[in-house]
Amino acid sequence: MREIILLALKARTSPEFSLDRLPESGRMDLVCRTISNALWISKDLRRDTIIHIAMNGPNSSPKIISFYGETLKGLEPDERTIAKYIKLTLKEGLKLKLNEEIEVSAGIKISKKAFESLVKEKSKTSQLIYLHPKGEDLRKFNFKKDVTFILGDYIGLPRKTEKLLDRLGAKKVNLGPKILFASHCSIILHNELDRRTF
Amino acid sequence: MREIILLALKARTSPEFSLDRLPESGRMDLVCRTISNALWISKDLRRDTIIHIAMNGPNSSPKIISFYGETLKGLEPDERTIAKYIKLTLKEGLKLKLNEEIEVSAGIKISKKAFESLVKEKSKTSQLIYLHPKGEDLRKFNFKKDVTFILGDYIGLPRKTEKLLDRLGAKKVNLGPKILFASHCSIILHNELDRRTF
Repeated sequence: MREIILLALKARTSPEFSLDRLPESGRMDLVCRTISNALWISKDLRRDTIIHIAMNGPNSSPKIISFYGETLKGLEPDERTIAKYIKLTLKEGLKLKLNEEIEVSAGIKISKKAFESLVKEKSKTSQLIYLHPKGEDLRKFNFKKDVTFILGDYIGLPRKTEKLLDRLGAKKVNLGPKILFASHCSIILHNELDRRTF
Repeated sequence: MREIILLALKARTSPEFSLDRLPESGRMDLVCRTISNALWISKDLRRDTIIHIAMNGPNSSPKIISFYGETLKGLEPDERTIAKYIKLTLKEGLKLKLNEEIEVSAGIKISKKAFESLVKEKSKTSQLIYLHPKGEDLRKFNFKKDVTFILGDYIGLPRKTEKLLDRLGAKKVNLGPKILFASHCSIILHNELDRRTF
């Protein structure tokens, strides 16, 4: 299984945001592009992929919205349609208690859970990986079968998050000489894994 | 110089389309994501890149809109903002005569020109490359300094376009085992060139 966790530090966690101004809601546009690039290929979804958006912006943080490639239905890969689903999902999520999770539509779940709890859970069953300029070259990295990539949004991963990941045994990889958007990284990660799997 | 030409067979060429329903205008959402992924990196633009969108949809085809990383100003990487600029640019383009070109805003030009004319021009000064499952592996390919990648949209490149490209001496490359969206391909192409250049 391939999992991606995007830490979206400022992404709005309550549904009051405008679909016409996504960049103003903690860069919701970037969140949507990352979901799109993580899950879609031409004419299909990546059934072996789950992407979790750990959202820490106002007004109802923390929230994690998870999209399951295997069961997802109805969603389209454009930013506005994805944002519409996020809005609906956040609305349903307002009533959640801490660590409670519900499935709002086919393949889309929301929980009131902190990023830290999610990565701790994943560290027990999956190889945690995050991106770092001094990490090992992605093309030489020894992947396990179940991997979880942790990506930062436009702000990047805070130092204390990197320290937590280090304590959990996460590995660092380097994708190349340029610093890319999270939405770009998932494409390169998938391409590398696709090449290993076939 | 890196150039990308996206052949968008159904993308609307007159400005009457809704920013709220981009997928309905010949998959304008996909066009916008391809532009975004081709030109942006974290905190900067790719100054060495030009992307041309060869648009053949209704009602004023053919049109080519070209985005120059070196001189682009004001644009943001989200789909809606890019679509807004495309709309404005198409409006200015309505008055163009065949093969005439104008700069509508900093780093954005439009011409009334056919895709075929553009690739013929580029073939004189740049290495033409298109994607094909039987092409050479991207990672082993011998790139020249000036390259032009030709990408198809959701429909793919028609057989007659591939034949034209073959006649012009274009090379075929293969990115990996999965068929991706054009917007994904530019990320992988850039990553490979970034690794060669540094």
